[in-house]
Amino acid sequence: MRRAFYEEDHEVFRYAVREFVAREVVPHQLGWEDAGRVDPALWPAAGRQGLLGLAVPERYGGGGTGDYRFRCVFMEELARVGAASVNSQVSLVDDLVLPYLLDLGTGEQRERWLPGLCGGALTPALAITEPGAGSDLRGIATTARRDGDHWLLNGGKTFITNGGHADVLVVVARADPEGGGRGFSLFLVERGSPGFTAGRDLDKLGQRGENVAELFFDDVWLPAGALLGTEGEGLRHLREHLPTERMSIAVYALAAAEAALGWTLDYVRQRGAFGQRIADFQNTRFELAEMRTELDVTRSFVHDAVLALNAGDLSATDAAKAKWWTTELQQRVVSRCLQLHGGYGYMREYPIARAFVDARVQTIYGGTTEIMKDLIGRDLVRE
Amino acid sequence: MRRAFYEEDHEVFRYAVREFVAREVVPHQLGWEDAGRVDPALWPAAGRQGLLGLAVPERYGGGGTGDYRFRCVFMEELARVGAASVNSQVSLVDDLVLPYLLDLGTGEQRERWLPGLCGGALTPALAITEPGAGSDLRGIATTARRDGDHWLLNGGKTFITNGGHADVLVVVARADPEGGGRGFSLFLVERGSPGFTAGRDLDKLGQRGENVAELFFDDVWLPAGALLGTEGEGLRHLREHLPTERMSIAVYALAAAEAALGWTLDYVRQRGAFGQRIADFQNTRFELAEMRTELDVTRSFVHDAVLALNAGDLSATDAAKAKWWTTELQQRVVSRCLQLHGGYGYMREYPIARAFVDARVQTIYGGTTEIMKDLIGRDLVRE
Amino acid sequence: MRRAFYEEDHEVFRYAVREFVAREVVPHQLGWEDAGRVDPALWPAAGRQGLLGLAVPERYGGGGTGDYRFRCVFMEELARVGAASVNSQVSLVDDLVLPYLLDLGTGEQRERWLPGLCGGALTPALAITEPGAGSDLRGIATTARRDGDHWLLNGGKTFITNGGHADVLVVVARADPEGGGRGFSLFLVERGSPGFTAGRDLDKLGQRGENVAELFFDDVWLPAGALLGTEGEGLRHLREHLPTERMSIAVYALAAAEAALGWTLDYVRQRGAFGQRIADFQNTRFELAEMRTELDVTRSFVHDAVLALNAGDLSATDAAKAKWWTTELQQRVVSRCLQLHGGYGYMREYPIARAFVDARVQTIYGGTTEIMKDLIGRDLVRE
Amino acid sequence: MRRAFYEEDHEVFRYAVREFVAREVVPHQLGWEDAGRVDPALWPAAGRQGLLGLAVPERYGGGGTGDYRFRCVFMEELARVGAASVNSQVSLVDDLVLPYLLDLGTGEQRERWLPGLCGGALTPALAITEPGAGSDLRGIATTARRDGDHWLLNGGKTFITNGGHADVLVVVARADPEGGGRGFSLFLVERGSPGFTAGRDLDKLGQRGENVAELFFDDVWLPAGALLGTEGEGLRHLREHLPTERMSIAVYALAAAEAALGWTLDYVRQRGAFGQRIADFQNTRFELAEMRTELDVTRSFVHDAVLALNAGDLSATDAAKAKWWTTELQQRVVSRCLQLHGGYGYMREYPIARAFVDARVQTIYGGTTEIMKDLIGRDLVRE
Repeated sequence: MRRAFYEEDHEVFRYAVREFVAREVVPHQLGWEDAGRVDPALWPAAGRQGLLGLAVPERYGGGGTGDYRFRCVFMEELARVGAASVNSQVSLVDDLVLPYLLDLGTGEQRERWLPGLCGGALTPALAITEPGAGSDLRGIATTARRDGDHWLLNGGKTFITNGGHADVLVVVARADPEGGGRGFSLFLVERGSPGFTAGRDLDKLGQRGENVAELFFDDVWLPAGALLGTEGEGLRHLREHLPTERMSIAVYALAAAEAALGWTLDYVRQRGAFGQRIADFQNTRFELAEMRTELDVTRSFVHDAVLALNAGDLSATDAAKAKWWTTELQQRVVSRCLQLHGGYGYMREYPIARAFVDARVQTIYGGTTEIMKDLIGRDLVRE
Repeated sequence: MRRAFYEEDHEVFRYAVREFVAREVVPHQLGWEDAGRVDPALWPAAGRQGLLGLAVPERYGGGGTGDYRFRCVFMEELARVGAASVNSQVSLVDDLVLPYLLDLGTGEQRERWLPGLCGGALTPALAITEPGAGSDLRGIATTARRDGDHWLLNGGKTFITNGGHADVLVVVARADPEGGGRGFSLFLVERGSPGFTAGRDLDKLGQRGENVAELFFDDVWLPAGALLGTEGEGLRHLREHLPTERMSIAVYALAAAEAALGWTLDYVRQRGAFGQRIADFQNTRFELAEMRTELDVTRSFVHDAVLALNAGDLSATDAAKAKWWTTELQQRVVSRCLQLHGGYGYMREYPIARAFVDARVQTIYGGTTEIMKDLIGRDLVRE
Repeated sequence: MRRAFYEEDHEVFRYAVREFVAREVVPHQLGWEDAGRVDPALWPAAGRQGLLGLAVPERYGGGGTGDYRFRCVFMEELARVGAASVNSQVSLVDDLVLPYLLDLGTGEQRERWLPGLCGGALTPALAITEPGAGSDLRGIATTARRDGDHWLLNGGKTFITNGGHADVLVVVARADPEGGGRGFSLFLVERGSPGFTAGRDLDKLGQRGENVAELFFDDVWLPAGALLGTEGEGLRHLREHLPTERMSIAVYALAAAEAALGWTLDYVRQRGAFGQRIADFQNTRFELAEMRTELDVTRSFVHDAVLALNAGDLSATDAAKAKWWTTELQQRVVSRCLQLHGGYGYMREYPIARAFVDARVQTIYGGTTEIMKDLIGRDLVRE
Repeated sequence: MRRAFYEEDHEVFRYAVREFVAREVVPHQLGWEDAGRVDPALWPAAGRQGLLGLAVPERYGGGGTGDYRFRCVFMEELARVGAASVNSQVSLVDDLVLPYLLDLGTGEQRERWLPGLCGGALTPALAITEPGAGSDLRGIATTARRDGDHWLLNGGKTFITNGGHADVLVVVARADPEGGGRGFSLFLVERGSPGFTAGRDLDKLGQRGENVAELFFDDVWLPAGALLGTEGEGLRHLREHLPTERMSIAVYALAAAEAALGWTLDYVRQRGAFGQRIADFQNTRFELAEMRTELDVTRSFVHDAVLALNAGDLSATDAAKAKWWTTELQQRVVSRCLQLHGGYGYMREYPIARAFVDARVQTIYGGTTEIMKDLIGRDLVRE
């Protein structure tokens, strides 16, 4: 069945990415997990290779392409080697933070931050979640109190990737206590701002090559130029950027599931038990057939959704469908694949083992499965 | 999310089909089910409307188009009104029997049978399954013993749609007892041939507007011209035609599930319990969101597969994936939708009730889910 | 694994029941389904055999035993032969209607109705459900307006088993429009009461040997003696009797699933495909092993619940757990077993086919699965 | 619903165990996980408390009771605090190694090892699994070549709990290369035996407070007294002890799932989102109700199986049912509970996070789910 999704340019790009990943990522993965952080030298290397800021205009050092299929290629190549932590950090740059700067940033803000982010010299973070507000954006309690032409930021965030060492953070805060849903604004907060501290690194089950931290803001002074986008439109800005974030999670989820099936096919074709290959048990064949089918079915949908994203007509509900479906699929597939590895599947030296814990957060961050279903369901029952 | 599957021609066709179905099918459905058979007058009407033999050249009275999307439109419109029995009989003509005649028939065979089948004047059947051989084609025990330039057919078939009143049947039989997998041939058997009798109508759970019968062959004399295709290549002929049959089942399965969800959305938006609409319970919304997602995901794949079928590059394994996935999906969705109807879902006057029993055979005929998985799995573990 | 659930008395009873069922039920089942009603002569025969009114004191012609295990035996024996319609009607007598009369009936009411119900001479019905109120009891709109020392009943009911020919009906109606949850009362309504009519028989998917009808009440005059139980306590009376009804459904559900697995084991051990028994495919073995396990696990719980029912300490939530779990299990098991029968599973002459449609209503009546989960969930999250 | 499983003695024991666990285990868990090993001082403390060797006669320092319910109490109390690693090591002593010594040990062997094992002074291991033989016992390739009245042991084992520091190991080896299934024997191997080395500690996903290692045997000299049980009956000895091992896994699986639900109930009743408690979403209630039901259903079966184990009539297939069912249940429940914790569920400081990775090996060791189903299925289809 012909699938005309990728074109020649993408395959050329894939070739370069695969080589980069094999050289710069694969040999270091377990070490980075033990250290709790990817070696920071990886990012400038990725920047030099042209792997960051794909959608950023070339004059800022980016790739100058709005074609999300190049991002898909990069995610697939990272998934192939189980590099979930690296992927999350790349995605944070390209799919989460840069779109805000590109869509909402002033000329000055773009000049200041885009080159460093595209080059891998600067590390960003996106600070939305709070201890009392996960998927519930209106529950955000961090405040930005206006004082003349600047703001004072107070409150805290949690589960912030790169929180412990980000150079620049996009922070959402309630700027108008009376404003209801229109009382929130986005701000760019710089590392080292007085009153801004990062708490301890959080001890996660998986994606252990990635720093996730709590943040505290205690009267952090924000200049007028820290405002990102339109005052009071913070929630709208977030909502408009969620589909891209969700598609990035969906694409990686599918790629990770595909990788898991690939490792498993290799394993069951090589290993034996009871005098035959594991692959030769009918139960194994059925397991593989079910996973192969579900992955192929899902790929068609993800490809359609990526093309819609490219064309600018991916709806929030369609992104939500892609997000929950693929991440639940990823967890099912990875767990079944682990099982087919027997005891080896439980050993961290096997990529399937790490893939299992790396996958577990995918149905939680970026909007839980429950939030996605509620959003889709409300859309359906509306008169 | 834009889906560029159907084009304007298909929608024009859909308009005509919908009108035809509303007029000729909808008012009669429960009556046909009670009678155990669709009124035979439906078929000439369908023929006049140009709904039969879409892929048959116009000179034989067909639609002259190899674009399977027209077939999809027809199936969707039948599914919308729960006309599974009508669909099965149309599919038998267009997706099962006619492709054999088009691909394998001699000029004489085509002249003789195509016009009547396209016009709805003649009723065909496909006689493969036997009491001791369902999905296992090599287990076929019906024999065609050559006697000079003709054959004598002996044996029996079961689960044969239209078996009780077909005018012409494509029958597979073992013609060479020593031939192994290459010992089978296809034959065209005519109604009224001496020695050919149909047994009682089988009492099926669903699709009750459709005759299914056992057949018996007792020294049925077949002339030389009864051979369809190449002698000894019967199994290969069958295998080459299975993907189209399976795709036809898959397309209807998806359409039936979509229809069930549509009826259910109407129901839960109108009906209340405990002081609110059923649609307003979070559980209902989640159920709907899950089904909506799974249908959308699956549609992308089915569309890709139909385009591959059009292009002639749909593999047997991809057709198998589509077949088992969509039919299992159909059963899940229809049963969940029935549940959301409460007690009304169990009453045959509601289309969801009949859709539930109509669906149950879909994972069985045309190759069971188990056979599909085995086929896909074997393909995967092959070195 | 020893299971000390049944004792010798129960096995003696089982022997008699099995003989009765083989003689009086098995030969007639398909005929009764076609007729839409069990032959009324069955009930006096069952009464003579001592199979009705097991919990009713012997002086009224009952079995005089509060041990529900005898009911379990009867249900298991009916399930073994797929006699769901017969079971529903027996259960209506013993598990639904008689407990109301035994617990709430005056001496006069008991004298009048118990002997006929135990002897099979009288047919009862329980009329709760209304077109606009299924599981939502407070939505009941039928009214009983007091007029001196009698009542005038107005409204309608639906999905009433035996509705078309019951001799006596327990009807719940709102007797006090201001009473809120305490405004409902139960009444005994007799066949032939002026203003009481039964609508058409409902055309159900399964359990087709059982009449289910709509009822209409148009100023039906009810004498003082028609009140059953305490005025205004109708909902409490219903709630107190729901656990027994739900357990009866649970016990039959498990028995029906067990029967389905038994038929299937016979089938797969006898039938072959691809040169071996169906039982010899690993997939078949896994299917059987999963079902066997789930049935055994569930049986332990059902036995515990029945013993709790006997002891009078089965909580409403535990009955709800048993009800939804077993009925969902039944549907899963029966559908998987049907699948293992291949095309034969779709033919009504095979008991597995009828068991499939008979099972489908089990998660709906007696409180839907959704209602059961809501009830259990509310109990859990209560502070 | 009354459950008469535990008696007063068990509850007295539970009280002491809970106090012990709170004092000696709870404060140290995360530290032990980081260290990759429970503090060895725990075991003598457990021994002094009378928690080890429950089934060992008192004269050897054991508890002198064959009532497995005391073991259940201990497992439940460890599960309550998420102490899976501690439990695995206790179970290794009481459920895996001691039964071999009690059932098969000579007087001398018992005198030598039982007191130290019951007192916690000695650490045992059970060495069955090999790199090329997991659940497939006949694939064991380690050999014990007889040389006069002693043996020379050669080969290797993997996934051996306590392998890196066990004082005494029960090792299964092929002693008769021609013996087929009767060529295997069990041996007691002591730490420090020349030629016996332990490889690196394996880096597991979970149960990280427990050492698991590879072992190597290079001409390890075993004296005559090293033989455990009957020569050539090693596989039979293993098979006879598997039901106890499997029940121990099943009991812990159920207890761990129960604990996870308990933590989750606490969490959803305290935490809020969108202006209400998480517990107040219908989806949450349904999730909780489903898990509560499935746990209650399963508990009845596990209790029946434990009583059968006590009575000596637990069959291998019933133990297999309990093993796969409960461990799959555990994984489902723990993962759903993690999901209900949102982002916190992914943080190792929350017990639900560690419970998730601890659970993942339960369907693998002690016989995979697939092996269990195959065993049960073969038993069913046997004529």
